[in-house]
Amino acid sequence: MTGAEQLFVDVERLAARLDALAEIGPLEPGGSSRLAFTELDGAGRDLVVTWMRDLGLEITIDGIGNVIATRQGRTEGPPVMTGSHIDTVRTGGRFDGCLGVLAGLEVIETLMDADITTDRPMAVGFFSNEEGARFPPDMMGSLVYVGGMPLEEALDTVGIDGTKVRDELDSIGYLGSSPIPGLSPHAFVELHIEQGPVLEEGGVTIGAVESVQGISWTEIEIVGQSNHAGTTPMRLRHDAGYAAAAVSTFIRGLADEMSGDQVATCGAMTLHPNLVNVIAANATITVDLRNTDDELLQEAEARLARFLEKLASSEGVDVTTRTLARFEPVVFDQTVVGLVEANARALGHSVVRMPSGAGHDAQMMARVAPTGMVFVPSIDGISHNPEERTDLADLRAGANVLLRTLVQLATN
Amino acid sequence: MTGAEQLFVDVERLAARLDALAEIGPLEPGGSSRLAFTELDGAGRDLVVTWMRDLGLEITIDGIGNVIATRQGRTEGPPVMTGSHIDTVRTGGRFDGCLGVLAGLEVIETLMDADITTDRPMAVGFFSNEEGARFPPDMMGSLVYVGGMPLEEALDTVGIDGTKVRDELDSIGYLGSSPIPGLSPHAFVELHIEQGPVLEEGGVTIGAVESVQGISWTEIEIVGQSNHAGTTPMRLRHDAGYAAAAVSTFIRGLADEMSGDQVATCGAMTLHPNLVNVIAANATITVDLRNTDDELLQEAEARLARFLEKLASSEGVDVTTRTLARFEPVVFDQTVVGLVEANARALGHSVVRMPSGAGHDAQMMARVAPTGMVFVPSIDGISHNPEERTDLADLRAGANVLLRTLVQLATN
Repeated sequence: MTGAEQLFVDVERLAARLDALAEIGPLEPGGSSRLAFTELDGAGRDLVVTWMRDLGLEITIDGIGNVIATRQGRTEGPPVMTGSHIDTVRTGGRFDGCLGVLAGLEVIETLMDADITTDRPMAVGFFSNEEGARFPPDMMGSLVYVGGMPLEEALDTVGIDGTKVRDELDSIGYLGSSPIPGLSPHAFVELHIEQGPVLEEGGVTIGAVESVQGISWTEIEIVGQSNHAGTTPMRLRHDAGYAAAAVSTFIRGLADEMSGDQVATCGAMTLHPNLVNVIAANATITVDLRNTDDELLQEAEARLARFLEKLASSEGVDVTTRTLARFEPVVFDQTVVGLVEANARALGHSVVRMPSGAGHDAQMMARVAPTGMVFVPSIDGISHNPEERTDLADLRAGANVLLRTLVQLATN
Repeated sequence: MTGAEQLFVDVERLAARLDALAEIGPLEPGGSSRLAFTELDGAGRDLVVTWMRDLGLEITIDGIGNVIATRQGRTEGPPVMTGSHIDTVRTGGRFDGCLGVLAGLEVIETLMDADITTDRPMAVGFFSNEEGARFPPDMMGSLVYVGGMPLEEALDTVGIDGTKVRDELDSIGYLGSSPIPGLSPHAFVELHIEQGPVLEEGGVTIGAVESVQGISWTEIEIVGQSNHAGTTPMRLRHDAGYAAAAVSTFIRGLADEMSGDQVATCGAMTLHPNLVNVIAANATITVDLRNTDDELLQEAEARLARFLEKLASSEGVDVTTRTLARFEPVVFDQTVVGLVEANARALGHSVVRMPSGAGHDAQMMARVAPTGMVFVPSIDGISHNPEERTDLADLRAGANVLLRTLVQLATN
């Protein structure tokens, strides 16, 4: 590698592309709405593909609509790959996903401007339907890419609006023919906003992501007995509302006690009949448990299960549970994580090793290639929201760390 | 009083009237729907008034539609009064209210059949809109009767369907002219189903109701911060959903600790955005506190307020409260309560002194006359429900206790 140590991205050019992409399905004050496989998603894809074409990259589109653009290196072989996604949640921000794709383009254009050709090929891609907001599951494109979900099953997925992935993908012109599973890259690195408050709170610029939390989602249905709030003595109650609340406070205590990376959330709770003077007959609540260590996550699940058993007996309610989602934690490649950390330091940025609390395409790519991620701060930790923001200086820092890391990985 | 000790009601006749009234607005498997001032309420009123007329009683209808039927006694003066209401909640039972009215009619008919005239006049009435299910507040008719609410204000009340009490009352023909406030009776006794599980659980036939619980209803609005359930460490959360759950479990602990008659219910809880993987931004919950002792009720309110202050500070959420309702406890007349208890015993029934957890017209009448209530068991404590049931033997027991008590109170 010659001269890449002096290379820096043009953050204004990167920001201009982020701006232009955000203008497709724009939402005040700076977000976007481009649900996967909609016309707006198609328009966003077209814009990014135009930029890829303008740079002279070789473009492939596979059966689930993943788009990979490759710049050849000095030698043959699998490319060093970067990328992310450009679909959004219904009311999304401009950085989530798009940053990783457009920073990858910016890295390649920076290399081109400096007339530097890496040893290995370098590729940037965007994976289909990372958000899963219209068609479950999330990270669909990268999951299919690595062979984790049969293509036909993905194409047959019916969305929340009753449409099918196959038809929608076809209608926007992205039902491609490049083979599935896709080519395993030499390495994969994804730049992403943190979508949480940790970096900002610690005054740290770069997160060297070393793992993705395992996720355990449970829906809990509690059936008690509806009764009059005035005439029913406390000892004779079977209060589904109280039982639901007890689950919520229990998991808070559980997370506090286990500490470390354990988080626990009861985000949804619905009581029936939900009246001031009626003891609730039924309650439905969800529990979201996450940990980077699967043994600890299993411990949290087991303790919740034991609590539910005790609660059912003490309150005299029926408790049934249903697993909504269960993903094991993903551990990234130590070499890649180490490169990200070292490059951040070399560029003079504060850096911290951290887990990702959200899911990312990189966790799918980690199944087939040495993988890592670069996080930059989210102001106020806000994401999945048109208010999503990241400072320009942090965008520059993240893109430069990505540039260095990709160039090093692309060097024989 | 001559011979009344040997008198007993005809429970089959009482049950036949309950059946006939339940057939107006019938609901499977035995309930009724007669919301106040609807055509069905009007039809129910017409039926009961026909029975009153058939017995030759003097009928008055006042400005809020309360109907009082009086049988003259040997002497002039205010009557001994009984009664309740015949309006129902939207999906009501056949006993709530109707039992008190029709048992009063049965008592008078029993006296007539035996050719017994009491010293004082005896009256049976039904008060308008006790349920408050269409027009707030509940117990409207008896409240207006005792001068607790100006008639004009009551008539101007707009219901949940946008209609006005005055128009609806007029259209069913019950906008009467008898003066408000109404005549204060010599005493008032109301027979009612318990609407709770206490009598059945204790295997007791008669409740000698000595008080009505004070009620404190508070709506609590909690504003936290919506955040990602995966990326937000526990220490940085401002979780409105957790805070709401903590209120629910706190009031359960409060009631357990205060014990006695203190009950506490969080029947309604709504989270926003109510998603599995999003920390709730806002929560609205209701707290229903009741106690027969106002000092203890105030203590419960104060302890809740202190808890909310601590919670707001520890969780970093905004907490605002709004009083939805506040009624002081009502203590019934010791003489009347003593008569109910003694008559139950004399008739060979098990009896217990107890508070009422629900509101009743009797608590309004207690403002102007010595008042008491007779409770009979509700099977499984079920009420405000078409499944509401009370055994025939218990109906007979309650009506006979009412008969004796009214006759004694009507004796000079």
